[in-house]
Amino acid sequence: MARRLSIAGVLFREFELLDLFGPLEMFGLLPEQFEISLVAETGDRVASTQGPVSVINYRFDDSPRFDLLLVPGGRGTRREVDNPAMLEWLQDQARTASYVTSVCTGSALLARTGLLDGRRATTNKAAFEWVCSQGKKVKWQKKARWVEDERFFTSSGVSAGIDMSLAVIARLLGEQQAEQVATWSEYEWHRDPGWDPFAEVHGLS
Amino acid sequence: MARRLSIAGVLFREFELLDLFGPLEMFGLLPEQFEISLVAETGDRVASTQGPVSVINYRFDDSPRFDLLLVPGGRGTRREVDNPAMLEWLQDQARTASYVTSVCTGSALLARTGLLDGRRATTNKAAFEWVCSQGKKVKWQKKARWVEDERFFTSSGVSAGIDMSLAVIARLLGEQQAEQVATWSEYEWHRDPGWDPFAEVHGLS
Repeated sequence: MARRLSIAGVLFREFELLDLFGPLEMFGLLPEQFEISLVAETGDRVASTQGPVSVINYRFDDSPRFDLLLVPGGRGTRREVDNPAMLEWLQDQARTASYVTSVCTGSALLARTGLLDGRRATTNKAAFEWVCSQGKKVKWQKKARWVEDERFFTSSGVSAGIDMSLAVIARLLGEQQAEQVATWSEYEWHRDPGWDPFAEVHGLS
Repeated sequence: MARRLSIAGVLFREFELLDLFGPLEMFGLLPEQFEISLVAETGDRVASTQGPVSVINYRFDDSPRFDLLLVPGGRGTRREVDNPAMLEWLQDQARTASYVTSVCTGSALLARTGLLDGRRATTNKAAFEWVCSQGKKVKWQKKARWVEDERFFTSSGVSAGIDMSLAVIARLLGEQQAEQVATWSEYEWHRDPGWDPFAEVHGLS
């Protein structure tokens, strides 16, 4: 690649820690390919559901355009689905982003923008019904570790974001590069997007 | 438990994102049992190797005592093994902590304090030789996802910290609670501390 791809981790109060930092670890292991920023609506720092607080690089009104969007889930999504500033920023950025990705209930935010209408997508299985209600025209997949629909990658709950981000890396840089990243992070990559034992746990398979 | 256990994530410049936030996600899913703080030597924020910056809750000179220490790895450990302030704080806190845990090259810091002398421990496999050189009296385990030696839990690289933290939760609250946390985070927990395909990748098995 000629230049690094810019990634925006989209933050909001009560985001889920691992939804964000699992994928960012994977992309961050390739610093020559990816450049990571954290973006939020306002302020200069955002607290996760679990407590730890992250420093913001850009606010919605001063952010550049990004090549790749990463929308985590977490308790805060229940509020953000009704936040016009969040939905408008996502919609605007998604017009030009090469990849639009979400983890867990982050897909509810994408669904509310209408970006997933007519597309296949997934989310975490514990909140499946609620997320589905946020996008009636989305083809929600009950059993999937992650779902790829052209430039949209949506993943199941929390740790599934790691597998999804490796799939994005595989698409961009090849399977071997994704494999290398998984090995560096000593992560057992679930290569099969259909692998999803948690669907069964929640009676969805 | 009568009161929440306090956890200190010990930060330094160029810590590895997932080493820290993988385990903190697992503990953070039990907010009635665990309270998370981030601690560093100085300043009010610390940058990870991957870029994202975290806000610090306490500095070494104003921190309370913690029940559980979590020491991540990352490029910064190469510098911190020679930082007396870091080693002295760890040594002092470890005197009274119920559990002392590390991920990846974080075990090099514990090794340099002498806390692991005569104990079984592990680290990530890509940096195995260097970490071993930081504690000649430690019984380093070549093939292990994580190692438990009384109140010391050391894990292999990056994502191995997630399995290790689930093992700590199992020890404290029972196997069923750890299982529940793994399910909530849709994480396939490696329950066997001897599971370590990455040792073989690096010619260590």
